[in-house]
Amino acid sequence: MVKIQLFSTGGTIAKKYDEISGELIFDDNHIQKMLIQGRCSASIEVTSILSKDSLEMTDFDRDVIFKACQDTFASKVIITHGTDTMVQSAKKLSTISDKTIVLTGAMIPYAFKNSDALFNLSGAISAVCTLPRGVYICINGQIFLWDNVVKNIKEGRFEKLF
Amino acid sequence: MVKIQLFSTGGTIAKKYDEISGELIFDDNHIQKMLIQGRCSASIEVTSILSKDSLEMTDFDRDVIFKACQDTFASKVIITHGTDTMVQSAKKLSTISDKTIVLTGAMIPYAFKNSDALFNLSGAISAVCTLPRGVYICINGQIFLWDNVVKNIKEGRFEKLF
Amino acid sequence: MVKIQLFSTGGTIAKKYDEISGELIFDDNHIQKMLIQGRCSASIEVTSILSKDSLEMTDFDRDVIFKACQDTFASKVIITHGTDTMVQSAKKLSTISDKTIVLTGAMIPYAFKNSDALFNLSGAISAVCTLPRGVYICINGQIFLWDNVVKNIKEGRFEKLF
Amino acid sequence: MVKIQLFSTGGTIAKKYDEISGELIFDDNHIQKMLIQGRCSASIEVTSILSKDSLEMTDFDRDVIFKACQDTFASKVIITHGTDTMVQSAKKLSTISDKTIVLTGAMIPYAFKNSDALFNLSGAISAVCTLPRGVYICINGQIFLWDNVVKNIKEGRFEKLF
Repeated sequence: MVKIQLFSTGGTIAKKYDEISGELIFDDNHIQKMLIQGRCSASIEVTSILSKDSLEMTDFDRDVIFKACQDTFASKVIITHGTDTMVQSAKKLSTISDKTIVLTGAMIPYAFKNSDALFNLSGAISAVCTLPRGVYICINGQIFLWDNVVKNIKEGRFEKLF
Repeated sequence: MVKIQLFSTGGTIAKKYDEISGELIFDDNHIQKMLIQGRCSASIEVTSILSKDSLEMTDFDRDVIFKACQDTFASKVIITHGTDTMVQSAKKLSTISDKTIVLTGAMIPYAFKNSDALFNLSGAISAVCTLPRGVYICINGQIFLWDNVVKNIKEGRFEKLF
Repeated sequence: MVKIQLFSTGGTIAKKYDEISGELIFDDNHIQKMLIQGRCSASIEVTSILSKDSLEMTDFDRDVIFKACQDTFASKVIITHGTDTMVQSAKKLSTISDKTIVLTGAMIPYAFKNSDALFNLSGAISAVCTLPRGVYICINGQIFLWDNVVKNIKEGRFEKLF
Repeated sequence: MVKIQLFSTGGTIAKKYDEISGELIFDDNHIQKMLIQGRCSASIEVTSILSKDSLEMTDFDRDVIFKACQDTFASKVIITHGTDTMVQSAKKLSTISDKTIVLTGAMIPYAFKNSDALFNLSGAISAVCTLPRGVYICINGQIFLWDNVVKNIKEGRFEKLF
């Protein structure tokens, strides 16, 4: 069976409601909950390397992601990531040439009833299993090459550049 | 953009609760509801060709599915299907050599809180966009070739034959 | 704190999807799951005395329910019950004069996304805490006396008789 | 049929996720969505009079709530309200002696999968239909008199004072 390494970094997909503070916080178990709901039988190693909104990610954070991708023995890597700077992180990873790396996330956290998170995670799993080496974003039913995608911030969706 | 033809045929994925009869019936809009929840921006044409439990599918029904796949102009085809005879239908379609055909379904109907339907649909969308011509089953995080898959009925999951 | 005895007897409210058989079966933990989701801090003792569709309930089954209500030390009793013969069971209990007994159930099982189960359970809890001795049905935002209620089977809702 | 006036004022119960800003905002239709899910057949007039976190409510806001309760022709009034200052608003309303007023809310917004909102709304509906004149808080399976309740902020639940 193909072995997949999933690095979670936070982002919208990971948020849950904290009833004491009344704020959205990161749920450490969101990926495991999704894999269970999806009855996922793929062999996926889940590692949390960051818990951040992607707007707050620093160059240092992107270095952490880069090193994690570079160092893993897996040739298939999924990164869950906030959508706002997902394209930036994809670009940063584009020099890694020996792996298939797929970034995904969600427009609505998994904890919400109308979340797209489960949909996006599974799309990324199929994508990472089938695509050749390279860096991709897979979200909301589409797969983009890292250098041909932009987030349309006004409409809240990813689009091809050209 | 890649154009995908989705044929829905019924199966577990499509069931909802009928409050008058107290029974599970087929929901004609289950695919559209899932594409909306997934905020899917892929170009997918949805056509309902059958509404059946796959255990009740006849040879004639499989002919209907076969002809639909053969006749569509789309080169990428997704079939939502009951899990019990999904492998049989995949085999029937295996002589179609000019298309990528991906069958999927669910162990738990989309209408249930703990459903794997949304997960499976998206996995099939990525799979159909990336796989070469051939017939596949994509479900619960795994992609199978039509001639190397069996449903483990006792445990309710798909497995490789060898 | 008021002590409430809840007897669960099955019915629509209790159904979940069995992925092996593809059928609706009774979920032994449905009441506990609802009390947890409702963060219920009322003192409620939950006892399962039957697991049946109410259409299949026999006179013997109704005797079991009657005896359970008669014998409990609690003066406040909730019964979760299938909707089809809920009125019949309410009538059977109407000779118990030293308790407040509230029957409730659901049109859609708790396991479904669009279920009314959580709504109905809580309505019954408030009702049993506030109503005088007697037998009532509390469902879908209304409270009915046992002898002034009928299920409108065509439209799937409870209505006053006069 | 008893006529109930429901005033919504915002609070946790009303929040949904805004996918453009990534923040929680008020959902104008949350009460209607809940009444539909609960298949509520009670006669309830829903009026939104405020959309605020209860921590941000001013004396002026509480005057608005007070006047709305005082002026309505309905003798049964439900107020959905943020939990943090719900007790304060209940106290403010305690001089209204000709009505049954029940305040409720939620620890988790209705938009989340694990929300207690539906549970609490229905508890309030039964409570307002059965309780004598006075001002009450009904939440998480319990009914409190306005002058015998406090929110335990650390544990996120309401408790009796004595």
